[in-house]
Amino acid sequence: MKARVTVTLKNGVLDPQGKAIEGALKSLGVEGIASVRQGKVFDIELDTSDKAKAEASLKAACEKLLANTVIENYRVELT
Amino acid sequence: MKARVTVTLKNGVLDPQGKAIEGALKSLGVEGIASVRQGKVFDIELDTSDKAKAEASLKAACEKLLANTVIENYRVELT
Repeated sequence: MKARVTVTLKNGVLDPQGKAIEGALKSLGVEGIASVRQGKVFDIELDTSDKAKAEASLKAACEKLLANTVIENYRVELT
Repeated sequence: MKARVTVTLKNGVLDPQGKAIEGALKSLGVEGIASVRQGKVFDIELDTSDKAKAEASLKAACEKLLANTVIENYRVELT
């Protein structure tokens, strides 16, 4: 079973990395970009085919390690 | 107009960061994780409402800065 976890910064949290990318795109001459925010994505393979078990494992992984829930949101998609 | 760009490592490219996360999850007692690969996600706001123009800008941004196309794949979703 495969899953994709997407971790993004919460609204209102400053994103200096995104700002730097925005600046770099402008100086590279890429037009039409208003703002950039960077996040992380994790492609996870699970060795179970039980959906409930997989969801529980992924939730634990996100809460314990993958996301800092003070400043980040996470979203789990099973595929 | 908003877009999400997802950059992931190509198959066969080693991912030491993903391996480290795998190990950390195991030592944290999260069960059922077979493998982890990490990628990046960019949430981009565009100041155009022309879909073709937006797609061209995003392609340029990916090729020039966001992805290293030697070792990474990228996917653009307009939302």
